[in-house]
Amino acid sequence: MKRILALAPHPDDLEIGCGGTLAVHASRGDEVHAFIATYGDVGGEAPVRKSEQETAAAILGVQHLHWGDFQDTHLPEQAQALMAKLESVVQEVGPDTVYVNYRDDTHQDHRVLAQVANSVTRYVPNVLAYETPSSHAFEPTLFMDIHDTVSQKLKALEAHASQVDKTHVRLSIIEIALATAHFRGVQGKLTCAEAFMPVRLRL
Amino acid sequence: MKRILALAPHPDDLEIGCGGTLAVHASRGDEVHAFIATYGDVGGEAPVRKSEQETAAAILGVQHLHWGDFQDTHLPEQAQALMAKLESVVQEVGPDTVYVNYRDDTHQDHRVLAQVANSVTRYVPNVLAYETPSSHAFEPTLFMDIHDTVSQKLKALEAHASQVDKTHVRLSIIEIALATAHFRGVQGKLTCAEAFMPVRLRL
Amino acid sequence: MKRILALAPHPDDLEIGCGGTLAVHASRGDEVHAFIATYGDVGGEAPVRKSEQETAAAILGVQHLHWGDFQDTHLPEQAQALMAKLESVVQEVGPDTVYVNYRDDTHQDHRVLAQVANSVTRYVPNVLAYETPSSHAFEPTLFMDIHDTVSQKLKALEAHASQVDKTHVRLSIIEIALATAHFRGVQGKLTCAEAFMPVRLRL
Amino acid sequence: MKRILALAPHPDDLEIGCGGTLAVHASRGDEVHAFIATYGDVGGEAPVRKSEQETAAAILGVQHLHWGDFQDTHLPEQAQALMAKLESVVQEVGPDTVYVNYRDDTHQDHRVLAQVANSVTRYVPNVLAYETPSSHAFEPTLFMDIHDTVSQKLKALEAHASQVDKTHVRLSIIEIALATAHFRGVQGKLTCAEAFMPVRLRL
Amino acid sequence: MKRILALAPHPDDLEIGCGGTLAVHASRGDEVHAFIATYGDVGGEAPVRKSEQETAAAILGVQHLHWGDFQDTHLPEQAQALMAKLESVVQEVGPDTVYVNYRDDTHQDHRVLAQVANSVTRYVPNVLAYETPSSHAFEPTLFMDIHDTVSQKLKALEAHASQVDKTHVRLSIIEIALATAHFRGVQGKLTCAEAFMPVRLRL
Amino acid sequence: MKRILALAPHPDDLEIGCGGTLAVHASRGDEVHAFIATYGDVGGEAPVRKSEQETAAAILGVQHLHWGDFQDTHLPEQAQALMAKLESVVQEVGPDTVYVNYRDDTHQDHRVLAQVANSVTRYVPNVLAYETPSSHAFEPTLFMDIHDTVSQKLKALEAHASQVDKTHVRLSIIEIALATAHFRGVQGKLTCAEAFMPVRLRL
Repeated sequence: MKRILALAPHPDDLEIGCGGTLAVHASRGDEVHAFIATYGDVGGEAPVRKSEQETAAAILGVQHLHWGDFQDTHLPEQAQALMAKLESVVQEVGPDTVYVNYRDDTHQDHRVLAQVANSVTRYVPNVLAYETPSSHAFEPTLFMDIHDTVSQKLKALEAHASQVDKTHVRLSIIEIALATAHFRGVQGKLTCAEAFMPVRLRL
Repeated sequence: MKRILALAPHPDDLEIGCGGTLAVHASRGDEVHAFIATYGDVGGEAPVRKSEQETAAAILGVQHLHWGDFQDTHLPEQAQALMAKLESVVQEVGPDTVYVNYRDDTHQDHRVLAQVANSVTRYVPNVLAYETPSSHAFEPTLFMDIHDTVSQKLKALEAHASQVDKTHVRLSIIEIALATAHFRGVQGKLTCAEAFMPVRLRL
Repeated sequence: MKRILALAPHPDDLEIGCGGTLAVHASRGDEVHAFIATYGDVGGEAPVRKSEQETAAAILGVQHLHWGDFQDTHLPEQAQALMAKLESVVQEVGPDTVYVNYRDDTHQDHRVLAQVANSVTRYVPNVLAYETPSSHAFEPTLFMDIHDTVSQKLKALEAHASQVDKTHVRLSIIEIALATAHFRGVQGKLTCAEAFMPVRLRL
Repeated sequence: MKRILALAPHPDDLEIGCGGTLAVHASRGDEVHAFIATYGDVGGEAPVRKSEQETAAAILGVQHLHWGDFQDTHLPEQAQALMAKLESVVQEVGPDTVYVNYRDDTHQDHRVLAQVANSVTRYVPNVLAYETPSSHAFEPTLFMDIHDTVSQKLKALEAHASQVDKTHVRLSIIEIALATAHFRGVQGKLTCAEAFMPVRLRL
Repeated sequence: MKRILALAPHPDDLEIGCGGTLAVHASRGDEVHAFIATYGDVGGEAPVRKSEQETAAAILGVQHLHWGDFQDTHLPEQAQALMAKLESVVQEVGPDTVYVNYRDDTHQDHRVLAQVANSVTRYVPNVLAYETPSSHAFEPTLFMDIHDTVSQKLKALEAHASQVDKTHVRLSIIEIALATAHFRGVQGKLTCAEAFMPVRLRL
Repeated sequence: MKRILALAPHPDDLEIGCGGTLAVHASRGDEVHAFIATYGDVGGEAPVRKSEQETAAAILGVQHLHWGDFQDTHLPEQAQALMAKLESVVQEVGPDTVYVNYRDDTHQDHRVLAQVANSVTRYVPNVLAYETPSSHAFEPTLFMDIHDTVSQKLKALEAHASQVDKTHVRLSIIEIALATAHFRGVQGKLTCAEAFMPVRLRL
């Protein structure tokens, strides 16, 4: 049994980047925690998004949901408070493995969370970066086979009902997630995969 | 009217990497040439693969097909002869733009073609690298909208009937191509795209 | 007709990095906007520098000059306000293409503008980074032929009369600009060029 | 039980790069194979070095030693034959994980083995690069705790008696190995580690 | 006689990263300055750590110790004040060469000091980055032979008595420093070395 | 007094990449050797080019000219023989510092010489890569002030009379060299510089 902590700037980032992987951990009996820095209220109603995230987490088997309660799109100004908060979450959870979005990203909240996580996870043995549609120059070398959990991942994404069609192309979040799972699968010599870049991983 | 030259190590690499883009060029009235280094006879019968490639090229609107007649999987030994051959093709075609597979790749023929192309295209104003499923560390920044030609791309891939199901995952070449078009599309803020890394491009 | 938006931290950065390119756009009939974040009053008198910038912009054919009115050398502290301001400029202009200085730079204002631009241009189809003398590790792959506009570029630089000889070597800004145009030209197989790194470009 | 295949250009490269890791695999009950491309006869007598390598392999728990019988320092000329040989070894062993020296290296044999391995391992799910003293720009992110096997690693290195003092600094191979184990350990938040860069790894 | 300025976020970072190099400079008769941004009071008592640093500096031959008096672990919030302070130190010292910790690091104070130093050293002819145990992706190409000063380096580290055993592995700071000196030595074809990445160096 | 060895694939590459630097070494009393791999007979008459190179070397103060006598544009096929030849030159000269063209280049001879040099200089303490107009992704961090020798550099280039106007842009080799000296000068905070990337340098 391992302790897993996944970090996300907003509701639904987690499902996009590592939803299938968290479901794999849950199915293995690992203790799965998630930390969401904001309620994503710039992209929707806070109570709605919070509730969607709780549903999605339950679908994936995430057992503990930690909320940051920070102001959406304003993480750069709140970086020091975010660091203090995350230090205490890491302290409390004592994770074997942390998942966090990749640092090169067009969204300022994503960049700040990745950078703060870099500090607070400095003694965590395994730290892995996941991708989102706003990641840039993401070159994964690690692959999780999500063949058995991809349907959970898609259901968890559907649970974010207020966001499913909020994309900037003529594809829903579901379609994007499935294309990504196949694209990364092929790179990992798999049919469905989520892909990661290691900050640090113990073999 | 521009002159386009696309280079590929084997039949079907072209369709995978830049088939939709060549169809866009053809629809704009550009003169489209392709050079295929080998008949891909390690992966099938040479006459079959040659014929499939001819059909696929016609579907995309490629007007001139140049064959290298080199030995499949043995390009490293034939690098100097390949360079001489490609020099003469580049001389003859006088391309404005060359497309060639990316150099970091697990297939030795792909690596050698990319490296040789690097030399022979040294005075070509526009040289762009495309990806294949065996590319590694490919970080594209250029995107061609293939919304209007993706069906041609898929048909051209189907024309390679002997190869469609020869993948190492439970997805056909068609499914992989579509997932890739959506994945790269999202990165380019498009619905369907082919993605490229510039060696050199004139604005 | 395209809409072009060029972003600069201080007066004269624009002329140095992409002055010839903006003049090319103007000559093609594109609508050319520029945003200057500060008046550069640490390096001169604000009214003088503002006036020099207006003259330079006119020489290049820049039709719309947007001023940020931020405090020179202090952009790091004003990052959130800069982001809000730039969001509204991007909203108003609706650019097809944004030019912005490269992010790895010894000047803190340059670093911050590049990072903020990374966020606000997230849905702009074409975003290109230009170089300045304080850029670091700039590896361009895109080249604009400025043969026909280099004299406009040099005149626009001369219009920044208070700055022309403020360099840290025994070369004027004009001499540096011309050496750069030739150096980048050779890389792009041209005689005079401005060079760019793509954040994202549509073919 | 997993099948492990470690590739090395010369006797003792394996012990230097991943000796402690192979001993960990052996202790877990994995089936451990090694392939040594040459007898290293430029650096010693071939029969002596072969025998030293056999002793060292036994110390580590390597069960199957495959010899390439290629000419030392001349791998570039033998690349195609090496590829054919390695294809058959990979076919025969069917490894879950391949270890191979990193590709950026001052020794031509190291560069060629890494490149050939890149091709022959194209469908192996886990491929990891190890470092040697001639590696360059090696940036590891994966760490194997070798606390329990470091003494085996050092004994295996001592078994290469003809090589122990053949270094170009005033340190024996043993001293270099121990310093490396501590240096990489600290990076992995461990006391003794071997470090790897992933080509591709399944979580 | 040259003027050397070494920058460090906390007491003992200097000794770890470039203590042997500073001792070489002192032995050559160079004027050696050090700037320490904080008293490191999160990791110990401020007066104790200040006194330890003074002793260590004396052992290395550092003649001028400049204190930043900033709040430990909170440099991100104090970046602008740190920049102003460092501008005045650089102005006062007029260094030929500046040493500063590498910018990719898990400690937020390290990242901020490196970034601020990037700005304030913009006209310093030689700027070199040193490593610490929290550096990431550090790829050195410059090596200082510290064979004659390594004992001073170790004594200077011992002078930080409150920190010697505060590591996160079963190795003291002394053991880590010696392993690092050997590891980097081998890369530089030396027995004992400190390693650097150039920001900018004049030959 | 130091021993310097500069390596070049063809006549005039040396003058372009490090002519001013070699003249600085000569003026310091260093022993300066050059090795030219081919007579460059694809770009001119071999005896003419040999004689031009001898004149140019004399202008720069290069005291020992070593000729490789390899076939122009065919270095890839002659790599092993080139390695043997260069091993003996390095053995004979015993250089403190080796200069060689950068490895990422559109010319196959340049790529091969750089790669072979990587092997034969493995124990040379200082190895620096210079740029040529066909270099790619060259990011220099080391700068030699050539203010006092730039006129020698230009004269040495003029001595290659058969090549001066053989460029692919409307600039002579002299004009390109001067633009490059200023461009790299500004990066090194100098008026005229040659720029290098370190493979390995001792401080």
